[in-house]
Amino acid sequence: MDLMTYSEAVLSGDRLALTRLLTQVENNLPEGRASLIELFPQTGKAHLIGVTGSPGTGKSSLVNQLALHYRKTENKRIAIVAVDPSSPFTGGAVLGDRVRMRDLSGDPDVFIRSMATRGSLGGLAQSTANMAQVFDAAGFDIVIIETVGAGQSEVDIARLAHTTLVVEAPGLGDDIQAIKAGILEIADILVVNKADRPGVENTEKALKSMLELAHPAERVFRHHGSTMRIAAPKQDSSSAPMWIPPIKRTVSTEGKGITELAESIAKHLAHLRQSGDWAVRERARLEVELDALIREALVSRFRQDVPQQQYDAVLEKIIQREISPWEAVRVLMKENNESI
Amino acid sequence: MDLMTYSEAVLSGDRLALTRLLTQVENNLPEGRASLIELFPQTGKAHLIGVTGSPGTGKSSLVNQLALHYRKTENKRIAIVAVDPSSPFTGGAVLGDRVRMRDLSGDPDVFIRSMATRGSLGGLAQSTANMAQVFDAAGFDIVIIETVGAGQSEVDIARLAHTTLVVEAPGLGDDIQAIKAGILEIADILVVNKADRPGVENTEKALKSMLELAHPAERVFRHHGSTMRIAAPKQDSSSAPMWIPPIKRTVSTEGKGITELAESIAKHLAHLRQSGDWAVRERARLEVELDALIREALVSRFRQDVPQQQYDAVLEKIIQREISPWEAVRVLMKENNESI
Repeated sequence: MDLMTYSEAVLSGDRLALTRLLTQVENNLPEGRASLIELFPQTGKAHLIGVTGSPGTGKSSLVNQLALHYRKTENKRIAIVAVDPSSPFTGGAVLGDRVRMRDLSGDPDVFIRSMATRGSLGGLAQSTANMAQVFDAAGFDIVIIETVGAGQSEVDIARLAHTTLVVEAPGLGDDIQAIKAGILEIADILVVNKADRPGVENTEKALKSMLELAHPAERVFRHHGSTMRIAAPKQDSSSAPMWIPPIKRTVSTEGKGITELAESIAKHLAHLRQSGDWAVRERARLEVELDALIREALVSRFRQDVPQQQYDAVLEKIIQREISPWEAVRVLMKENNESI
Repeated sequence: MDLMTYSEAVLSGDRLALTRLLTQVENNLPEGRASLIELFPQTGKAHLIGVTGSPGTGKSSLVNQLALHYRKTENKRIAIVAVDPSSPFTGGAVLGDRVRMRDLSGDPDVFIRSMATRGSLGGLAQSTANMAQVFDAAGFDIVIIETVGAGQSEVDIARLAHTTLVVEAPGLGDDIQAIKAGILEIADILVVNKADRPGVENTEKALKSMLELAHPAERVFRHHGSTMRIAAPKQDSSSAPMWIPPIKRTVSTEGKGITELAESIAKHLAHLRQSGDWAVRERARLEVELDALIREALVSRFRQDVPQQQYDAVLEKIIQREISPWEAVRVLMKENNESI
């Protein structure tokens, strides 16, 4: 690499430099941050696709198939960021990169990266966002961000994506579907994977009724056996049509339904561009990122300004119930302000 | 209530005042905060018990049975804070208070409160902590905090509890158990509920092997069919014995195993007191709370100091890729500092 910086090497297509930069970025090292600043002007081009769903839905295999499809039919450069379920304490990833690589290995235009869900979720969303930026700058056309589990983490990470796929599968039980209600609201496309399994109609029906709750794009009135549909008011005053999340069936192990799913993703991308939603999502995403960085900077400045001894003394007073945590904050903030 | 403050009314046992204060605290209103400051010196007495596990484990019914047990045999005052699964966007709770109340209704020494998991998880953990403090000050001996789902939220909320129960049930599938590995590490007691179902032995076996990974209290070497156990080094240098999470079977619908579970909880409480872990957990809990409040105060001071117009202008530059988010933070922080 000689006199090239990491970011120059990454922009020139150096795969080893990319790997190293990703590690720096994942671990939030200062060198990584410096490169991110240099690379930032080159970002904003990649299509970020979020793929989320519970374990057992065959999500990873679906992501593999989608990546293969994009390689074969559209010759696009694909990056996959897999956010693995793992202990919040040990940080060990359950799925390794090795398993994922089988079908895609050796292709220089595919890059797969697994992340452990270590640390706080806010931190994870931030690292994932930074990784996506690196891939974006490095000229990957599509960045697939795959998350496992259910909950706020998915929502936070979905905020990064332009297009979010929520994957379900038949037979995972009603309990699990109930907890997914929040996740459905972030879906741009719903995928029923393992659609060759019994119960696929029920899963699809459950998703449809949940969609009607989440996206009241049409209000359905059932009256004497007939169905009357009344369009709900549009969310914004623009003339662009609203996006109603389609439900797509796939059997990822056999590659079935992948072409149709890719078409649906392309339609969503076209919708984002036409409706102006691309810009809306970009703005929201960058605002979330800016706010997270502001928070981080404020806390680190505070930690520098307040001596550890003073912090410990105040904490001890709280433990003794001499002052409340709210009063403690007031004390620390005031002295911090005066010391500047 | 006349001239009494909310906190005085709560301390005097006024149930209506308690209900209202909980609402203020849940919605993070200034009146709620003022009362919390007044009540804080009265906190630190209640035993906080966290109960977590996936949907379908019969967790709520177990919590009901535990509460009934404490009422009947120990005459303790019980509060239950149920953190419900719900949409992060709509904030609607799936389980209402009504369903939960059946067995415990009319008892003035039982208070059940459901919370929606609205807003950010950090916010939820904070609200739950505040609700627990209100109950603690109001003289409830035991505060049960029940959370649904899997992930960081449980970990954050478990940090509140002195004793954390992780509930499993037979037949929920290996996939789900895999994602639970992180949750297991926060367990002080493992409960296999629905223990009359087939597969209970397998669930218990799976939990045992996961426990060995999570708590290497004993390292098990299998050698030529024989098993040799070697004690792992203690986590601290004190002479108190380490707590090895027991596994308890229950059938909560029939009240089976509840007495034994309550005994196990009592043992854990005794362990906390003897080992000094009670103080360690109190300190950790209050430190987490102090840090969250500091963060909140820093962000709100920043928002006051930086005019919206300036923030918007900087965000626009980021969107245009004229500056990176990191440079933007530097600019905003610098001007913020100078303006003070």
